[in-house]
Amino acid sequence: MTVTYSSTVANATFFGFHRLLLKWRGSIYKLLYREFIVFASLYTAISVLYRFFLTGSQKRYFEKLSIYCDKYAEQIPVTFVLGFYVTLVVNRWWNQFVNLPWPDRLMFLISSTIHGRDEHGRLLRRTLMRYVNLTSLLIFRSVSTAVYKRFPTMDHVVEAGFMTAEERKLFEHLKSPHLKYWIPFVWFGNLVAKARKEGRIQDSVDLQTLLNEMNKYRSWCSLLFGYDWVGVPLVYTQVVTLAVYTFFFACLIGRQFLDPCQEYVGHDLDLYIPVFTLLQFFFYAGWLKVAEQLINPFGEDDDDFEINWCIDRNLQVSLLAVDEMHMNLPQMRKDIYLD
Amino acid sequence: MTVTYSSTVANATFFGFHRLLLKWRGSIYKLLYREFIVFASLYTAISVLYRFFLTGSQKRYFEKLSIYCDKYAEQIPVTFVLGFYVTLVVNRWWNQFVNLPWPDRLMFLISSTIHGRDEHGRLLRRTLMRYVNLTSLLIFRSVSTAVYKRFPTMDHVVEAGFMTAEERKLFEHLKSPHLKYWIPFVWFGNLVAKARKEGRIQDSVDLQTLLNEMNKYRSWCSLLFGYDWVGVPLVYTQVVTLAVYTFFFACLIGRQFLDPCQEYVGHDLDLYIPVFTLLQFFFYAGWLKVAEQLINPFGEDDDDFEINWCIDRNLQVSLLAVDEMHMNLPQMRKDIYLD
Amino acid sequence: MTVTYSSTVANATFFGFHRLLLKWRGSIYKLLYREFIVFASLYTAISVLYRFFLTGSQKRYFEKLSIYCDKYAEQIPVTFVLGFYVTLVVNRWWNQFVNLPWPDRLMFLISSTIHGRDEHGRLLRRTLMRYVNLTSLLIFRSVSTAVYKRFPTMDHVVEAGFMTAEERKLFEHLKSPHLKYWIPFVWFGNLVAKARKEGRIQDSVDLQTLLNEMNKYRSWCSLLFGYDWVGVPLVYTQVVTLAVYTFFFACLIGRQFLDPCQEYVGHDLDLYIPVFTLLQFFFYAGWLKVAEQLINPFGEDDDDFEINWCIDRNLQVSLLAVDEMHMNLPQMRKDIYLD
Amino acid sequence: MTVTYSSTVANATFFGFHRLLLKWRGSIYKLLYREFIVFASLYTAISVLYRFFLTGSQKRYFEKLSIYCDKYAEQIPVTFVLGFYVTLVVNRWWNQFVNLPWPDRLMFLISSTIHGRDEHGRLLRRTLMRYVNLTSLLIFRSVSTAVYKRFPTMDHVVEAGFMTAEERKLFEHLKSPHLKYWIPFVWFGNLVAKARKEGRIQDSVDLQTLLNEMNKYRSWCSLLFGYDWVGVPLVYTQVVTLAVYTFFFACLIGRQFLDPCQEYVGHDLDLYIPVFTLLQFFFYAGWLKVAEQLINPFGEDDDDFEINWCIDRNLQVSLLAVDEMHMNLPQMRKDIYLD
Amino acid sequence: MTVTYSSTVANATFFGFHRLLLKWRGSIYKLLYREFIVFASLYTAISVLYRFFLTGSQKRYFEKLSIYCDKYAEQIPVTFVLGFYVTLVVNRWWNQFVNLPWPDRLMFLISSTIHGRDEHGRLLRRTLMRYVNLTSLLIFRSVSTAVYKRFPTMDHVVEAGFMTAEERKLFEHLKSPHLKYWIPFVWFGNLVAKARKEGRIQDSVDLQTLLNEMNKYRSWCSLLFGYDWVGVPLVYTQVVTLAVYTFFFACLIGRQFLDPCQEYVGHDLDLYIPVFTLLQFFFYAGWLKVAEQLINPFGEDDDDFEINWCIDRNLQVSLLAVDEMHMNLPQMRKDIYLD
Repeated sequence: MTVTYSSTVANATFFGFHRLLLKWRGSIYKLLYREFIVFASLYTAISVLYRFFLTGSQKRYFEKLSIYCDKYAEQIPVTFVLGFYVTLVVNRWWNQFVNLPWPDRLMFLISSTIHGRDEHGRLLRRTLMRYVNLTSLLIFRSVSTAVYKRFPTMDHVVEAGFMTAEERKLFEHLKSPHLKYWIPFVWFGNLVAKARKEGRIQDSVDLQTLLNEMNKYRSWCSLLFGYDWVGVPLVYTQVVTLAVYTFFFACLIGRQFLDPCQEYVGHDLDLYIPVFTLLQFFFYAGWLKVAEQLINPFGEDDDDFEINWCIDRNLQVSLLAVDEMHMNLPQMRKDIYLD
Repeated sequence: MTVTYSSTVANATFFGFHRLLLKWRGSIYKLLYREFIVFASLYTAISVLYRFFLTGSQKRYFEKLSIYCDKYAEQIPVTFVLGFYVTLVVNRWWNQFVNLPWPDRLMFLISSTIHGRDEHGRLLRRTLMRYVNLTSLLIFRSVSTAVYKRFPTMDHVVEAGFMTAEERKLFEHLKSPHLKYWIPFVWFGNLVAKARKEGRIQDSVDLQTLLNEMNKYRSWCSLLFGYDWVGVPLVYTQVVTLAVYTFFFACLIGRQFLDPCQEYVGHDLDLYIPVFTLLQFFFYAGWLKVAEQLINPFGEDDDDFEINWCIDRNLQVSLLAVDEMHMNLPQMRKDIYLD
Repeated sequence: MTVTYSSTVANATFFGFHRLLLKWRGSIYKLLYREFIVFASLYTAISVLYRFFLTGSQKRYFEKLSIYCDKYAEQIPVTFVLGFYVTLVVNRWWNQFVNLPWPDRLMFLISSTIHGRDEHGRLLRRTLMRYVNLTSLLIFRSVSTAVYKRFPTMDHVVEAGFMTAEERKLFEHLKSPHLKYWIPFVWFGNLVAKARKEGRIQDSVDLQTLLNEMNKYRSWCSLLFGYDWVGVPLVYTQVVTLAVYTFFFACLIGRQFLDPCQEYVGHDLDLYIPVFTLLQFFFYAGWLKVAEQLINPFGEDDDDFEINWCIDRNLQVSLLAVDEMHMNLPQMRKDIYLD
Repeated sequence: MTVTYSSTVANATFFGFHRLLLKWRGSIYKLLYREFIVFASLYTAISVLYRFFLTGSQKRYFEKLSIYCDKYAEQIPVTFVLGFYVTLVVNRWWNQFVNLPWPDRLMFLISSTIHGRDEHGRLLRRTLMRYVNLTSLLIFRSVSTAVYKRFPTMDHVVEAGFMTAEERKLFEHLKSPHLKYWIPFVWFGNLVAKARKEGRIQDSVDLQTLLNEMNKYRSWCSLLFGYDWVGVPLVYTQVVTLAVYTFFFACLIGRQFLDPCQEYVGHDLDLYIPVFTLLQFFFYAGWLKVAEQLINPFGEDDDDFEINWCIDRNLQVSLLAVDEMHMNLPQMRKDIYLD
Repeated sequence: MTVTYSSTVANATFFGFHRLLLKWRGSIYKLLYREFIVFASLYTAISVLYRFFLTGSQKRYFEKLSIYCDKYAEQIPVTFVLGFYVTLVVNRWWNQFVNLPWPDRLMFLISSTIHGRDEHGRLLRRTLMRYVNLTSLLIFRSVSTAVYKRFPTMDHVVEAGFMTAEERKLFEHLKSPHLKYWIPFVWFGNLVAKARKEGRIQDSVDLQTLLNEMNKYRSWCSLLFGYDWVGVPLVYTQVVTLAVYTFFFACLIGRQFLDPCQEYVGHDLDLYIPVFTLLQFFFYAGWLKVAEQLINPFGEDDDDFEINWCIDRNLQVSLLAVDEMHMNLPQMRKDIYLD
C-alpha cells in the first residue's frame, strides 16, 4: 500500500521534515536495515583484521591500499549517475500512476446516455461496465504480480464475476497467438453499436462519445502494458548499480581508520565508528532504493500501487453508478441562496 | 495565502532582486528563524565548550575531530540531492495548481445551452451548478486540512448551501465502502440527460459537450486526489532530509574556529562568528524549506493555495453566471470603429 | 519590446556568436553596467584601503581574512543553484508566451459560421469579437503593468472602443466581490446561443465549436492570471539571490591581490585589476539577470512581451476578418498546375 | 527483442538490483566485452613497455607524462556531458515507443461503425483495415532496417498480403518524386466517404470519428519518420564520443602504476591491475552504450523494438476484430452481483 | 539539409560511435576548423614569444601569470552553463521540428469530405489546398532566410502558382499595419462555409472537422512564428558565450608549458603540443556550436530543416491527393487471408 504522509507535512513548521525521519513503514530504515547490517559487519571485520591480525609490514601495505581506495572512491560519480537515473525512474513511475485506468468517466457516460430502467436496460449497462472492468483486469494480470497471484487462471476471473461462463467460452474460442486483452474491448464496441440500433442510445453523437471514451480507456491500459514491456534499458540500470556497489566496495577499505601514529594526511584520528561513511551509505543506498521501489510500481512494496483494491473499488462503484443510480435523482429543491 | 511579488519585479532594475530580500511575509527569515536560533545556539555552545572548558589534550582531540568533520561535510552532495529533489517537488506543486478545478468552463456552457428563464429552468441550472461545486468540495475536504477544518461533517456542507437535506439523505443511503465524491458527479450526468429529454437541451451535441466538460472537471478533481494519495516516495524525502541534517551536524563541529596558534591549515584566523557557515545554513535549509512548503500546497502556509477562498468564489460566481446572467444581455450597439 | 536576433545567427559561421557580444539593446552590458560600477568601486575602495591605509599588522590580519573569504567563496554552489533556478524561470516564461490568448482561431470560426451580410449579422459578429478581445484585455490589465498604465480605469476601456456604455453599466451592475473578467465571456456564450435560436448559426455543431473555442480562449487567459498570481515561491528566489550576493560579497575581500612578498600560495602576482573576478561577476550576475527579466515577462524590460501592441493588433485584425472579409472571397480561378 | 526484467524487480528486496548484475542478454557485459578486451590489452601493453623495455631516463619521462595525463583525465567533464546527452537520447527513445502506431483504436471503431455482415461489408472492413496496416508498414520499411530486410521490394509487400495486385498497380501509377506512404492513407479516406454514401456508415458523426482516428494514426507514423529523419545533431554525438574516447586515452597512460620507489604523490602502491580504472571503463563506456543502443531503436539490438513482430500481430488481430468478431457477441446474462 | 546518420548506428556494435567521428558533412571538424586554426595559432604565437623573445625576468613574470590564469580557467563553470543552455536550445529546436505544418491531415479530409468530381468540385478542392499551402508559405517567408531568398516579393509567390493574380489584388487591397499571413486562412474558412451552403459538404459535422483542422494548421504556423519572434533571451546567450570565450582566453596563457627547470608544480614536462587543451577546445567549442546551429534551424546550415524542399513536396502531394486521387479507388478484392 502507498505510504501517505502529506498530511504530516501540510504546514512547514519548525524542523518540519524531522518527523518524517522517525517513520518506520515505507522508510529508508525498513528498506535498508539488512544491507546496512551486511555493510557494517564487513567494515568491522576488515577493521578487526587490520587492527589485530595483520603484521607490521602487512599493515603498511593495507594502509597504502586504503589510501588508494579512498582516492578512487571520491572519483566515482555516484551523485550524478544517481541523480539522472532516479529522475528518469521517478518520471516513469508517476506517468504510470497518472495513466491507471479508472472507469469513472465511462460509468458517468453510460449512466447518462444508455436509456431504459427496465430489465434489458439494466443488463445492458451492467454488461458494458463489466467489459470495461474486464479489459483493465486482463491488463493488470499481466502487469502486476499481486493481481496475477489473485487471478492465476481465467477460472478465477469468471468466479469473481468479471466474466460469465458464456463469455469465457467465446473468449477462448477466438484463436490468436497474441495477448487477448482487447477482446472485451471489441465486444464493448459492438454492444454499444447494437444498443444504438435498438434505440437505447438516442443519437450517433452519444454513441461516438462512448466509443471515444472507451478508446481512451484502452490507451491507458496499453500504456501500462508498454511501461511493463519496455522498461528502463537494462544497461542503464546496470551502470548505476555497478557505480553504487563499486563505491561501497571502495569505501569498505578506503574509509578504515588508519593508525594515527603513521601520520598519514587526514588520518590523525581514530574514531572506530565511521559515522559519515555510514551516513553516506544511507544516502546513496537509499537513493538507489528509491529507484528499486519505483521501477516496478505494481509489486508488493510498501510504496507500490494497491491494484487489487482498485479492481474491487472500480467494479463496485461502477455497477452502482450505472444501475442503482440510473435516473434515480434527488428531488430538485431551491438552494438557500435562491431569493 | 499565496505571496505575490511579481509586480515588485516587473522590470529588471538596479540590483532588482535585493528588494525581495527585505520582505518578511512568506520569506526565508520567517520560515527559518527558529531553526537558525537553534543552530546558532548549538554552535555557540560547542564553541564556548572548546574555548573555556576543555583541557589542553581535549582541545587537541577536539581539533582533530573538527578537521575530520569539516573534510566530510564537504563530501556530502547536498547541492545535487537538493537540486534534483526540489525540481521534482516544484513540478508537482505547479501541476497541482494548474489542475485546480474551476467551474468557469461549465458555468459558461450551462448558461448558454440549458434553456428556459422560468422557475424550472433557473432551478435546473442552479442545481447542476451546485453539483459541480459539490464534487470539488468533497475532494477538497479530503485533500486540504484547511477545508476539512471548515467542513468537518456533512452537516456543515448542507448548512453552507452546497447540498439540500434531500440530497444528503440519498447520498447517505447509497452504500459503498469507498469515498463517495463521485455521487453528485453521477447525479449531474443523469440530470442533464433528463433535461435533454424534457427539451431543455436542444440537441445531443449540446448534451455531450456538457458531459465531456463535466468529465474533464472530475478528472481534475481526481488528479488532485491522486497527488495527495501518492506523494513523493517517503524514502526520497528521507534521503534528502538526512543529507541536509547530516551536513549541518558536521558543520556544527567542523566549522569551529580552531586555535590559530596550532597552525592548522586554513585555521589562521579566529573570527568568532562563522559568517559563511551561517549563510550556508540559510541556502541549504532555505532550499529544503522550499520543498517542505510546496510538498503539500493545501495546508495553511503563507505560500499555500487559498482553497477556502476558491470555494466561496466559485459558488458565488457560478450561480450568478447561470441564473442572473442567463440571457440577460446588453443591447447590441455599434462599436466606435464601425463606419 | 522583445529583442530578436535569430536572423543574426541563422547560419553557424566563424565565431558565430561573437557578433552577439557586441549588441547593446537587451544586452548583458545594458542590464548590468550599474551593478558592475558599484562592484568595481567597492573592490577598488577595499584595495586602496589595504594598500595605502592599513598598518603592517592590520595588513596581515586582512590577508588572513582575504584567504578565508576566498576559500568559502569557492564553496558556495552558485552554479547549480542558478542552473536549476533559471531552468525553472525560463520554462515558466516560455509557457506564458505560448499561452498568450490570440483571437485568430475565434475570428476564423465566427467569420465562417455566423451567417448574414446584413447590418444585424455584421453587428453580431463584431460584438462577439469585441467580447473576445474584452475578456483578454481585462486579464491583461491585472497582469501587466504596461497595460494597466494605458487603461487605468474602465473609462479608458470604454473610450478605446472595447466596451459600449451600455455594456459598462450592466458590467458594473453585477455585484461580485471577485474579479469580473469572466462577465464578457458569459455574454459571449449567451449571445451565440441567441444567434443559434435566431438561425444565424445553422447547427448545434457550429454552436458547440464556438463555445469550445471560447472556453479554450478563457483558459489561456486564466492561465496567464495563474502565472501572475502564483509565482515562483518567494523563498526559492531569496535562496538564489542570497547565494549570488554572498558570493560577490566574499569575492570583494577574497579576490584582492595580496602582497606577493608575503608568499601566500597563489598570490605571487599583483595584477591590480582582477580580470577573472570581473568576468565571473558578468556570468553570475548576468545569469541572475536572465531570471530577473523573465520572472515577470509583462513589464517594460527590453525583453518583455509587447502586450499593448498585441491588444491593438488583435482588435484591428479580428474586426477586419469577421466584418470586411466575411464572404468576400476572390473569384475561383484555375491554378497554373491544373491541366 | 526488448529485454524485460521488470518482474525480477517487482519488489524491493535485499540487495535487490544485484540480481540484475548477473544477467547476460542485453547486459553491459555482452555489449562491452570486446571494447573491454581492447582497452585492457592496450593498458597491459603500455604497462609491460614501461616496466621492462624503457631505460631509466625514459621511465622518468614516461612517469611525468603519466602524471600529466592523469591530471587532465580528471578535468574532462565526462559525467556531465554524458548525463545531459543520455537524458536527451532516452527521452527521444521513449517518445518513439509511445508513438508506435497501433491499429487497435481504428479496428475498434471500424468494427462498431461500419455495418453489414454480408460479403460486401466484410470486404469493406477488411480492406480498410489493410490500408491502415499498409500505411504503417510503408513507414516501418523506411525507418527500420529489420523491416526493410524482410520487405526489400513492393513485391514482398504484395506477397505478404498487405496489398493486392490491383492496388499495387494504382500505387505505382501515381507519379510523385516523394515518398508515397500517404497513398493508402488517402484511399482509406475516400473509401470511408464512399461507405458513408452507400449507407454503410450511418451518420457523418461516425464518419468523422473514423477520419480523425486515421489522421491520428498517420501522425504517429509521420512522427516516427521524423525521428528517423532528424536525429540528434551529429555534432552533439561527436562531442560526447570525443569526450569519452579522450578520457579513456588519457587513462591508458595516466592510470599506470608508477614505480613506488620514485615516491610520486599517490603512487605508493603497485597493484598491477587497475581495478577502479577498469570499473570506470564500465560506467562510462556503458553509459555511452546506453545512448548507442537507444539512438536508433529500430535496429536489431537486444533492446530494440520488435517491429516485425508488431506488424504480424497488428494484421492478425485487426482482421480478427473487424471480421470474425463483428456483431458476434456473447449472449447477455445476469452477472453474479445482480440481485 | 539535415544530416541523417541513424542507419549508421542502427545496431550497437564494436566501438559503435567511432564511425561517426570520421564523418565530414555536418561534423564538428567542418564547423570548427577555422576557429581551431585561430586558437592554435594564437597559442603557438604566445608559446614562441615566451620561449624565444622574453628576457629572464619577463619569463618569470609570464610564468606567474600563466599559473594565475590556469587556476581561474578551472573555476569557470563552462560545463554546467553549457549543459543547461544546450538542453534549452535542443528542446526548442525539436519543438520547432515537431510543429512544422504539414498539409497531409487537411488534404486527407478535403479529399474525403468535399464532394463532386466535376470541374467545380475539382477547382474547389484545389483552391482550398492552395490556401493551406499559401498560409504556411507566408509564415516560412518571414521565418526562414532560405525561403525568403526564393520568394523575395509577392510576385514570386504568384509566379510559383501559390496565388492567383486576383487573390493577390484582394490580398493587397486589405489594409492592415500588421503581418497578413492570416488572410488566406480566413478565405479558407469562408470558402468551406460557402461549399457547405452549396451542398458540396454534406453536413455541419464535416464542416467543423475541416475548420478545426485548419485552425490546428494555423496554430502550428503561428507557433513557428513565435519561436522566431521570441528567441532564447539575448542575455542568456551572451552569458554562455562570454563564459566559453573567457575560458579559452584563460587557456591560451594558462595552458602554456612552462620551463620545467623552474619546478612549478604540475610543470615537469614540456610537450610543446597541448593535446588535452586542444581536445577541450573541441568539446566546449563543439558544444557551443551545437547551440549555434540549432538556435535558428531555418538557416542554411548542414543540419537545418530543408524548408524549400518541404514547400514543393507539400504543394505537389496535396494537389495530387485532393484532385487526381479523389474517389479514384482500386477495386476491392479479397485479401489472401479471407477464407
